Amino acid sequence: MSEPATVKMVEYADAGAEVRAVYDDIMATKGIDFVPNAWKTFASHPPTLKRLWYGLKEVMAPGALDPKFKEMIAVAVSATNGCDYCTRSHTAAARKLGMTDAEYGELLAVVGMFNQINALAEAYKIPVDAVFMKPFGAGPSPVPQGDGEAPSS
Amino acid sequence: MSEPATVKMVEYADAGAEVRAVYDDIMATKGIDFVPNAWKTFASHPPTLKRLWYGLKEVMAPGALDPKFKEMIAVAVSATNGCDYCTRSHTAAARKLGMTDAEYGELLAVVGMFNQINALAEAYKIPVDAVFMKPFGAGPSPVPQGDGEAPSS
Amino acid sequence: MSEPATVKMVEYADAGAEVRAVYDDIMATKGIDFVPNAWKTFASHPPTLKRLWYGLKEVMAPGALDPKFKEMIAVAVSATNGCDYCTRSHTAAARKLGMTDAEYGELLAVVGMFNQINALAEAYKIPVDAVFMKPFGAGPSPVPQGDGEAPSS
Amino acid sequence: MSEPATVKMVEYADAGAEVRAVYDDIMATKGIDFVPNAWKTFASHPPTLKRLWYGLKEVMAPGALDPKFKEMIAVAVSATNGCDYCTRSHTAAARKLGMTDAEYGELLAVVGMFNQINALAEAYKIPVDAVFMKPFGAGPSPVPQGDGEAPSS
Amino acid sequence: MSEPATVKMVEYADAGAEVRAVYDDIMATKGIDFVPNAWKTFASHPPTLKRLWYGLKEVMAPGALDPKFKEMIAVAVSATNGCDYCTRSHTAAARKLGMTDAEYGELLAVVGMFNQINALAEAYKIPVDAVFMKPFGAGPSPVPQGDGEAPSS
Amino acid sequence: MSEPATVKMVEYADAGAEVRAVYDDIMATKGIDFVPNAWKTFASHPPTLKRLWYGLKEVMAPGALDPKFKEMIAVAVSATNGCDYCTRSHTAAARKLGMTDAEYGELLAVVGMFNQINALAEAYKIPVDAVFMKPFGAGPSPVPQGDGEAPSS
Repeated sequence: MSEPATVKMVEYADAGAEVRAVYDDIMATKGIDFVPNAWKTFASHPPTLKRLWYGLKEVMAPGALDPKFKEMIAVAVSATNGCDYCTRSHTAAARKLGMTDAEYGELLAVVGMFNQINALAEAYKIPVDAVFMKPFGAGPSPVPQGDGEAPSS
Repeated sequence: MSEPATVKMVEYADAGAEVRAVYDDIMATKGIDFVPNAWKTFASHPPTLKRLWYGLKEVMAPGALDPKFKEMIAVAVSATNGCDYCTRSHTAAARKLGMTDAEYGELLAVVGMFNQINALAEAYKIPVDAVFMKPFGAGPSPVPQGDGEAPSS
Repeated sequence: MSEPATVKMVEYADAGAEVRAVYDDIMATKGIDFVPNAWKTFASHPPTLKRLWYGLKEVMAPGALDPKFKEMIAVAVSATNGCDYCTRSHTAAARKLGMTDAEYGELLAVVGMFNQINALAEAYKIPVDAVFMKPFGAGPSPVPQGDGEAPSS
Repeated sequence: MSEPATVKMVEYADAGAEVRAVYDDIMATKGIDFVPNAWKTFASHPPTLKRLWYGLKEVMAPGALDPKFKEMIAVAVSATNGCDYCTRSHTAAARKLGMTDAEYGELLAVVGMFNQINALAEAYKIPVDAVFMKPFGAGPSPVPQGDGEAPSS
Repeated sequence: MSEPATVKMVEYADAGAEVRAVYDDIMATKGIDFVPNAWKTFASHPPTLKRLWYGLKEVMAPGALDPKFKEMIAVAVSATNGCDYCTRSHTAAARKLGMTDAEYGELLAVVGMFNQINALAEAYKIPVDAVFMKPFGAGPSPVPQGDGEAPSS
Repeated sequence: MSEPATVKMVEYADAGAEVRAVYDDIMATKGIDFVPNAWKTFASHPPTLKRLWYGLKEVMAPGALDPKFKEMIAVAVSATNGCDYCTRSHTAAARKLGMTDAEYGELLAVVGMFNQINALAEAYKIPVDAVFMKPFGAGPSPVPQGDGEAPSS
């Protein structure tokens, strides 16, 4: 898309010290040598740039889940919301982290299926089974005897 | 929720042979001894019951991605869509398949973050960087030199 | 749901002449003897009550499309948006206008399928075929030679 | 839009026998002589291509509802979700099946109105009237005495 | 975007008297000398043009809230829905009415934050605190002792 | 709603020092003497609790926009997303900050109207007028001569 953002993007050369420090951390963290348009756009409001970057960096860091999985979740959310920029940039990011053709195909198959089932659950107003109501971590035996949709091995 | 569905749910005892066969496959595949409300609701229109169940079974089967990951994708999509039934049932399913507290916390952190960033990408109308436009599988070197948001290791 | 609305609903007995006139027209137009909660809620802001009621009355009146079809469209939109009140009230309205079990089953099958395909079209960023770009009514031959998804007879 | 899909689309000439069989059925069923981009994209993951095409073919076939109506439902869902590809392709498909200017104008009027009312129902948290809670097909007298929004004749 | 609308837009020169009267009121009300594409598109169905324009004019007029604030609400809603046309046109409108860079930055920060928190509230199925359930205007003391998220001064 | 969250909420008495410090700041900042359920839920994953609370506190603080306006934006976003918890809690918060009945009525009228117009803009695929494409802050004369929907004074 050649249409401009709604604000003037802040180029590195025009950025103040505070914004440059974030840009430097973005490039170092990602191992890239350019600042993606998302960050040049958010820099139009420096508190937003900082809150989003440091929040995203924390959320996407390796932890209980690995970064490739996290990028794939980002694709699932972005596609469900219909966000063009995020779908493209996180699909590229997941590929860079090793997502294969087969993994991508299965990821989107799940995304498509649940957008379908979500709409039908809302349309039919399906009552929630009592077994699904137990909160996670609420006691010594949090695993229900049966579940809803998970094919068990 | 005690509100009824918009249709009369089909109990096993009242189901015809075609519906019972699907119910039996659902219970056998999942290793449960009851039919969740979703399937009793979809059974009000048997072609829907069959298309959804056999489609879901195919999509959620182990493949390039494992079933726990697939259930977590289902949670991400269902939460983004605000679907009550699906969020609860697939959160329960992912727990049954071994999702830990820490994994669940990180999953939702990613889901929340990208709902935020998606909205801002749409609000600011961020132009897509050219580097994100290359289609997956389009040539011998599909990996871009730099990506958008993925923290590289 | 027994939870209250965010505003005090305006009962007929407490309504002023302006609101009562709308309530009377609602009941006469629909052939019912009570004021549904939606209208008692909108009456908390009389300009909203009037704009919505007279707008809805115009839009849902018989015209090129018949009222049953229009109620079914309302169900499709409301389910896609996940709106509880609207899904229930318009499902009831479509039933009252004669929607059969089979019609309802097929309606929701279409609603579910397109929520799936919409998400996948956004995920894969499918380019629009040139043939789908011709505006409706733009010339003597508005019908494309081929289309996208319509099974032709 | 000239932006590419996130995957390499599979052209007929490059497709294997399994994919070609689906392409042939798509063209024969629709009476067209080209494969729309949606299917060339889904073919990047053959199980997705097959599940979606045979599912869609079943759902959109003539039944209790006619195909033109079904395409119009597809437009309503796609517009509500803001899906570019689907909105354009199914608007074209509905036109090919005979949707008139007047029908299209009324369809979108309903779509717009319910996107408005859905948002307000969610904003005001309107409690569902008890009369709308009775499930469809739950007994010998499923038709409520009064409904919510349907103008009766 | 150079892609056409799905209908032929109605130019002033080609419009009938009824449509021209609306166009004249639009230009006079807004103090502009052209008809934006939205209205030329809605004019393809004159009842829609009239209902939307006179509805919008009423809703956006100065009242308890000032027009700049109302345009900013329009931006918040449009960004949340991912609507390209509306996001751009109402961002431009709010700027024309005096929205500053700082106001715009804060507006979008709030929009982003609540898209995040909304998704998490849906994901975790947070129960509503009883104190938030009291309807507005329901008695002499509608102000709760404590609230949810509002930083008090 | 009496349904539990998907996690065990963390009560003050059971919280560790880190979580208690956040809880104390929440109560002090808001001037309330209880911890709303949202925060007790987010505390199931302490990094989420901290990132959301300190992010929200920064975003909602008085700045170029006043807190009441910010809470009203939160209501607009939450209603558009159909988020029950957020709609109720931020409606209560805006009331506490002085939002009047008339302001609330007008707020929701705008929210409803733009959910309608957004859907129609997506349905008709309205091309963006060139005049709306100029980025904010891109030069000495950022104000277009004409805008789209803003009624000028």
